[in-house]
Amino acid sequence: MSTIADVAARASVSVSTVSNVLNGRVERMGAETLARVHQAISALDYRPNRAAQQLKTGRTPMLGLLVPSIANPMYGYIAREIETSAQERHGHRVVLGNTYRNKDKETGFFEDLVAHQIRGVIVISSLVDERHFESAVRRGLVMVSYDRRATPGSATAIDHVSVDNFEAARMATAHLVAYGHRSLGFVTASGRTMSRDEKMRGFFAAAEQAGLRASAHIIDGSAQSQFGDSEMAEVGMQLAARIAADRTRPTGVVALNDLLAFGLLAGFREAGLSVPEDISIVGIDGLFLSALTNPPLSTIRLPVPQMARTIVERVIGRMADPAIKPSEFLFTPSLIERASVARPSKSARLRA
Amino acid sequence: MSTIADVAARASVSVSTVSNVLNGRVERMGAETLARVHQAISALDYRPNRAAQQLKTGRTPMLGLLVPSIANPMYGYIAREIETSAQERHGHRVVLGNTYRNKDKETGFFEDLVAHQIRGVIVISSLVDERHFESAVRRGLVMVSYDRRATPGSATAIDHVSVDNFEAARMATAHLVAYGHRSLGFVTASGRTMSRDEKMRGFFAAAEQAGLRASAHIIDGSAQSQFGDSEMAEVGMQLAARIAADRTRPTGVVALNDLLAFGLLAGFREAGLSVPEDISIVGIDGLFLSALTNPPLSTIRLPVPQMARTIVERVIGRMADPAIKPSEFLFTPSLIERASVARPSKSARLRA
Repeated sequence: MSTIADVAARASVSVSTVSNVLNGRVERMGAETLARVHQAISALDYRPNRAAQQLKTGRTPMLGLLVPSIANPMYGYIAREIETSAQERHGHRVVLGNTYRNKDKETGFFEDLVAHQIRGVIVISSLVDERHFESAVRRGLVMVSYDRRATPGSATAIDHVSVDNFEAARMATAHLVAYGHRSLGFVTASGRTMSRDEKMRGFFAAAEQAGLRASAHIIDGSAQSQFGDSEMAEVGMQLAARIAADRTRPTGVVALNDLLAFGLLAGFREAGLSVPEDISIVGIDGLFLSALTNPPLSTIRLPVPQMARTIVERVIGRMADPAIKPSEFLFTPSLIERASVARPSKSARLRA
Repeated sequence: MSTIADVAARASVSVSTVSNVLNGRVERMGAETLARVHQAISALDYRPNRAAQQLKTGRTPMLGLLVPSIANPMYGYIAREIETSAQERHGHRVVLGNTYRNKDKETGFFEDLVAHQIRGVIVISSLVDERHFESAVRRGLVMVSYDRRATPGSATAIDHVSVDNFEAARMATAHLVAYGHRSLGFVTASGRTMSRDEKMRGFFAAAEQAGLRASAHIIDGSAQSQFGDSEMAEVGMQLAARIAADRTRPTGVVALNDLLAFGLLAGFREAGLSVPEDISIVGIDGLFLSALTNPPLSTIRLPVPQMARTIVERVIGRMADPAIKPSEFLFTPSLIERASVARPSKSARLRA
């Protein structure tokens, strides 16, 4: 059985630094230190002693977890990491809700948590309006939000943990530029969310940087619903048909996420276009499924296990210590190069 | 606002039949009647009045849901349908746990539910040994198990809701036979579960029926872990390499499930084999992702929304009325024909 001192020794930090990590007080910690402590906790399989907490009530404590749809493989992946971390490292159970990005469903879930005296909630949402979150916090909930950043300029009572979506789209776009693409598209579902806005800004920033702002375009389509699973792939299929029919189409596109990219791959194939010979694609998310497509998808990987761990540490840490201030945690994505990007063919370049 | 009488009228059944469906008393009901009532409930958006139940405790009731891993898209899909049905139709919240098919994790989850006075639990598991389930039931849990059938010949205290796995594999195999395949493989992960056993029996039954028992073989490989998500696709990739290297390989294979089939598709491509020209594949599950592969995967679709609804009705119905006896509910799958099956080529036939 490892102790907190073992973790500190292995990570070459003080015991109080490890304690800060375990209690969610990580806002002033360097990313490298945090990663070292996480690695030591994993390597030693260290489990904090939660017996004291359980003695108080005789029951394992609970957290709420709201997702747009657990049938979306990306949310399923994040939810598994969150639940496993909450349960194995912190002894908490998780109450799950699907919201279909519906504000009333989110609000109803918060009310049920309060009625059950569940005080911590993790929200995967990126509705632009966050006011019902603030109101739930006033009712006593400790909240961590994933996939959107804090509203600029406004004080917030909520932790925000997210990937740097601007950077994700910027990297994807820069990857196309590095392969010689001069005509670029960002393919997205219509409907505004904070994370989509940031990705579009990252796309345009990379295009601007390469002097290609005039030949960089948003290509968007409506989802029949916003459940975020099969519908997202269907948007990709529909948009692929539209792009294929456009003689001035871009030679390389960034997809809003991997699921939309899967739809693009299928739709281009149906329209008789080859990837990457006729058009290059970069996804965003790094789902394990992206390694299996034909061709395997180049994509931007999100550090999901690390983000999930931070999310859980923050909600549990702030429940334990109300003096900890809400903060923002931004994670850096990374490029996975596979086979869906190539230099544009001469005919594609001439056409575009 | 629709009433129970509206539902009965639309479904052309009595009010007490609708009431039986809402309370999980469906064991003697014909499948066609049940489907009609479900359709009427959906069409009218009928919500049973749960206010009485909530008045008792002031809180929405909860159910437990155990899955091997919510990162597996099939379990994510089932979990979404279960949670949505529990919440929207029956006013229950869902506590989620990932078990990684680990018996101790399952047992710990049951204990936590009992401590929280949560009385209903849905278990997606197919561990062959079910004794820890029976022991949880003795402690007061009302349990519905998905994805495995009752142990033959033994009285059970648990509802079993599953697809007919024997029939799923039999249909998949018969589909290959109908296309002229005479040399058949069933590709699976090693490790025994009830549902895998049933699928293998269905595979051999179809081969036997076609007089091909001698040229029907199990091809299996080990998963590094049994989490059931990316690992399953990796098993498929590894086995594809082994199958491609075997000069006496089958001309057509049935995959244990769609995820394993995705791995086979990627692995065959890497080994230089074309699907379906060199080898045909049929999956099992009917994930939405199976429509997006290259080529689109022929597969056996499981009626997930209907199964999820029955699961939720049973657990809530039996919590409300302990006189209802546990029973078994077996759902029939259906074939989706896409493009991963073709007649075996002459060279493939000669080789096999």
